[in-house]
Amino acid sequence: MKKRELYLAMDSTDPLGRFHEQFSLPENVIYLDGNSLGARPVKALERSRQVVAQEWGYGLIGSWNEAGWRALPEQLGNKIAGLIGANHGEVVVTDTTSINLFKVLAAALKVQADVDPSRKVIVTERSNFPTDIYIAQGLAELLDDGYSLRLVDSPEELPAAIQTDTAVVMITQVNYKTGYLHDMKELTALAHECGALTIWDLCHSAGAVPIDLNGADADYAIGCTYKYLNGGPGSPAFVWTSAALQDKVNQPLSGWWGHARQFQMEPGYEPASGINRYLCGTQPITSMALIECGLDIFGQTTMEALRKKSLALTDLFIELVQERCAEFPLTLVTPLDHQHRGSHVSFEHPEGYAVVQALIEKGVVGDYREPRIMRFGFTPLYTRYVDVWDAVEALHSVLSTESWRTDKHMTRKKVT
Amino acid sequence: MKKRELYLAMDSTDPLGRFHEQFSLPENVIYLDGNSLGARPVKALERSRQVVAQEWGYGLIGSWNEAGWRALPEQLGNKIAGLIGANHGEVVVTDTTSINLFKVLAAALKVQADVDPSRKVIVTERSNFPTDIYIAQGLAELLDDGYSLRLVDSPEELPAAIQTDTAVVMITQVNYKTGYLHDMKELTALAHECGALTIWDLCHSAGAVPIDLNGADADYAIGCTYKYLNGGPGSPAFVWTSAALQDKVNQPLSGWWGHARQFQMEPGYEPASGINRYLCGTQPITSMALIECGLDIFGQTTMEALRKKSLALTDLFIELVQERCAEFPLTLVTPLDHQHRGSHVSFEHPEGYAVVQALIEKGVVGDYREPRIMRFGFTPLYTRYVDVWDAVEALHSVLSTESWRTDKHMTRKKVT
Repeated sequence: MKKRELYLAMDSTDPLGRFHEQFSLPENVIYLDGNSLGARPVKALERSRQVVAQEWGYGLIGSWNEAGWRALPEQLGNKIAGLIGANHGEVVVTDTTSINLFKVLAAALKVQADVDPSRKVIVTERSNFPTDIYIAQGLAELLDDGYSLRLVDSPEELPAAIQTDTAVVMITQVNYKTGYLHDMKELTALAHECGALTIWDLCHSAGAVPIDLNGADADYAIGCTYKYLNGGPGSPAFVWTSAALQDKVNQPLSGWWGHARQFQMEPGYEPASGINRYLCGTQPITSMALIECGLDIFGQTTMEALRKKSLALTDLFIELVQERCAEFPLTLVTPLDHQHRGSHVSFEHPEGYAVVQALIEKGVVGDYREPRIMRFGFTPLYTRYVDVWDAVEALHSVLSTESWRTDKHMTRKKVT
Repeated sequence: MKKRELYLAMDSTDPLGRFHEQFSLPENVIYLDGNSLGARPVKALERSRQVVAQEWGYGLIGSWNEAGWRALPEQLGNKIAGLIGANHGEVVVTDTTSINLFKVLAAALKVQADVDPSRKVIVTERSNFPTDIYIAQGLAELLDDGYSLRLVDSPEELPAAIQTDTAVVMITQVNYKTGYLHDMKELTALAHECGALTIWDLCHSAGAVPIDLNGADADYAIGCTYKYLNGGPGSPAFVWTSAALQDKVNQPLSGWWGHARQFQMEPGYEPASGINRYLCGTQPITSMALIECGLDIFGQTTMEALRKKSLALTDLFIELVQERCAEFPLTLVTPLDHQHRGSHVSFEHPEGYAVVQALIEKGVVGDYREPRIMRFGFTPLYTRYVDVWDAVEALHSVLSTESWRTDKHMTRKKVT
């Protein structure tokens, strides 16, 4: 029979267990929403004090050079490169995921237009994170040149949707709702066979699953730093292109940070060579500097070790929920197949919103996504086996006592 | 005869003198570069601790609602509105100046194209801040529809350059090099007479000079928060459109934060009504939250009081430099005419770069811009009259001893 003590024992021998103390988490909270906003590395507090008090307050303008602010986009990019199968000099941290998607999508369409202007279709999932779809729609509308989106309703439909009219296949590697993990290598090969380029949104996979962009022969990637990478609320995003594509075309958000000679202040744009041409404007240093605190924790382990624990945690969660909560109307929407599972698990429940609110009240923080989906993120750097046990006990309690069935929990908060 | 004591006395009776202590500045530094990176408000340190330790570390994902992160773009925008002659609900803080310029320029061109597609010219100054020109070039190249820039070489040439082919007049209100202050009302009227729309870049004027966007009947404006507004290094920028133009067209960087129903996660973009449609992705909260500390200091005075002191400071600097340094090859490039002067003063010197380095070594921090321009920013919230005296004494010392004539000062640092 399963017991809580078993999981405490697993934590005590977990080779990754030592990382828990490098994060600052409130007591009496089981945080299963690190897939939305990662927890705070302990060191981020001292680093923020240093940036604000010393570097800004004392070093003032000189800190752009002397405190290394100017180098942060590349420096952080190089640390992320090691987590996503990219090489040194191929990644920069800058702007937001949405903005970076606009840059690489515009670049990819330009690369295609130069070769075959009849390719006008962008293929993606209807359940892709909405901002990805919106950005593609905004760019298509701006270009006003016949571009359109082809939205597929399931991963299985993707191969048939990639055709000779396809310019770009734009996929979020781990689906934000379902947790479905796409096969990057296989889909990229399929796209290339049809002459399409690939853009990978790594928001829900960077720091969550091993990624090998160059090994998969991918073309472009973007992603965020504030989920599994623990960069802090809204910390700037990252962007990667394959070495072959870096210098092929300009990206349209051609600000002075992407110029070949930024401080010559010339009145004509000439893009920097390499990934730096994907920089645009001056970055929010106080947010950006904190990203390094999270990345340096990743530097102490491997994505393979993290993946192993991630799968153990999600396996355990699924198993315990199915055992303990079998009588309730829960439907697992995350694949059981390891090959297609990211690091979060989603269950549908007819009153998912209210159940998640009731769980949060009990100190178990997951989140809710329309329609009916309860999401639980498992971040192997700081989620413990006993947390999984305790979370499922709390879920069982909420469902069996129907503590979610109150006005307070069932009334939607104003979220926009 | 002028004496240092005179200026100490002026500071002691200065009604704005009390604001100096609300900023944290290093001792033995005279900071005349607040036009590039504003000084740190004392309160920003405690606020950063609160955001990182409490809101992120303890409140975690809940802080988006409970700590008010979600409302920051509008909340800060409303505080900036009061400084730039905009109304409540017309300004949001988000992204960078470059990115916001792309949004409003694309919107302005769309508004024009819907009325008269033959308007294809964007008029601006050749000496505009380069990123503004680069962004316009990037958008023109992306649209690939015959758009071009018309660059004028002096403010006097602007009226003749605005013609019936002109879609947009895009001007930085205070020129970053010369400190020249354009007449917003006059130029806007000129543009409108020709059927052109105006975009005002307020980077060097927000918080530096009184601005009345609605009074001038302006169309679009963007600006940064890290110069005179003291928001912190690279803190997010702001964007304004006139009420009449807010809902007229979509802007192309259509991320989920600009959606009418952000959390409904619909697979089709529908812009929010009002200025919120100029939002795009998730913002860097740790940087963004600090902007309020600077804005709240502005809330304790008026732009008119600040302008009066700004002009007194720049008058004094010009007068003292011309008196004390008459024998040196200095050329004033900032207008003497108050109507056309911003809050920084620029002198050309054949070895401007080296002179600025030597001044910095003596604790007087100005900056250098190609070619030959030494810039000195006067930020009336924290610059004192005695600072002006001391800065000119230091300049005289550097020039008369030729302390700038060393390899160390004459060798350019790698700045890109």
